[in-house]
Amino acid sequence: MQVAVFPTAGSVPPLAAYAGWQPVAIDVLRATTTIITALEHGAAAVIPCTEPEAARQVAAAIPGARLGGERHNVRLPGFHFGNSPAEYTPEAVAGRTVCFTTSNGTRAIAAVAPLGPVLIAALLNASAVARQLAASGRSALIICAGSDGELCLEDTVCAGAIAEALGPAAELNDMAWLARALFRTHRSDLPGLLRSARHGQRLLAQGFGPDLERCAALDATDRVPAFSGGAIR
Amino acid sequence: MQVAVFPTAGSVPPLAAYAGWQPVAIDVLRATTTIITALEHGAAAVIPCTEPEAARQVAAAIPGARLGGERHNVRLPGFHFGNSPAEYTPEAVAGRTVCFTTSNGTRAIAAVAPLGPVLIAALLNASAVARQLAASGRSALIICAGSDGELCLEDTVCAGAIAEALGPAAELNDMAWLARALFRTHRSDLPGLLRSARHGQRLLAQGFGPDLERCAALDATDRVPAFSGGAIR
Repeated sequence: MQVAVFPTAGSVPPLAAYAGWQPVAIDVLRATTTIITALEHGAAAVIPCTEPEAARQVAAAIPGARLGGERHNVRLPGFHFGNSPAEYTPEAVAGRTVCFTTSNGTRAIAAVAPLGPVLIAALLNASAVARQLAASGRSALIICAGSDGELCLEDTVCAGAIAEALGPAAELNDMAWLARALFRTHRSDLPGLLRSARHGQRLLAQGFGPDLERCAALDATDRVPAFSGGAIR
Repeated sequence: MQVAVFPTAGSVPPLAAYAGWQPVAIDVLRATTTIITALEHGAAAVIPCTEPEAARQVAAAIPGARLGGERHNVRLPGFHFGNSPAEYTPEAVAGRTVCFTTSNGTRAIAAVAPLGPVLIAALLNASAVARQLAASGRSALIICAGSDGELCLEDTVCAGAIAEALGPAAELNDMAWLARALFRTHRSDLPGLLRSARHGQRLLAQGFGPDLERCAALDATDRVPAFSGGAIR
């Protein structure tokens, strides 16, 4: 199988060349980590919305729905939750649909959705994503959300964890090779790497330090959500 | 000083945010390596041209000019040289202007030229580029040419060599941090890293193996050419 990683939603290549590939979206800080956590804690579904107003409209149509999301790492006005996985407890989300909007994550998912159901990946489920990819036999097109439109360390190292777990037979593009090298040199201190990342430094400064530990928890779950038909389940 | 690295010509951010920064262009395999080699061997100037036809027209107007360049790594019809640094010997280029066109390198230079003279960097002159940046006191906007529109290992490790030579006080964006990490883990075997790169593998398959050694020769020269007024000198 082939593994092609791209560093930002804006760098996604023309999808025509990737027909039949399995798309994967990563936004470790913090959208995909939070989405996986919400589903792990019993949320019925997460509906990603590009704009806050769209999230409000969708939530108004779904009984018991909750609004989650951020801009510049801060909870949006009138929303139940921001973008910290710590907020998405079983008590808060079990059985509920979460309408969710974040800066980069939802864009990355949308960028590759034309290829079919998009696997939702973070460090939390990197090995489980790799197992699902291996079982499918399909090549993988892995899109990192990036940060402020640029490559970011946290998504890169997650792509590298998936590439590493796929084993030596996977054919990597250079970005996937580089990501795997980053994972190999930093796997023993992923929280430290996240603190070195620009976005990690901003989260630390905003008081979200504990989130970095949560987002760095490699293989904490076997759950691999997928985006399909407008919702992540 | 700040150091921001971007992985491809297509990923260059809006330049308005980088006024006053020093632009640097990298295309290790092989455009910037070849340009530096030609000037080191006495070429009067190298004129980068986006299209082969433009190179022919410019060369026709300059007495004694030579045509150099490639598409898909192969010398263009009617050109004196391809894109192998080995062809640009003192006997072949001393005192002559070289009109030069390659797939990615010229695009990377053009992408940041609005900021002012562009420093031409490769592994050959990485430390010399860093010294010039440090002496200028300006922040550095480093553009990798990439390969086929994607991030490539050879340009990334060169950006990392420059970042490393700038020392610990440089403030790096995540791509620069990642590039420096790659350089630190592979500085002892740069030819091996270039052989791992996709573009390096293609060059090997096309019989250009010796070029990989030439392109991996770290700090072989102190020369730092610059693109300004349509020519590199």
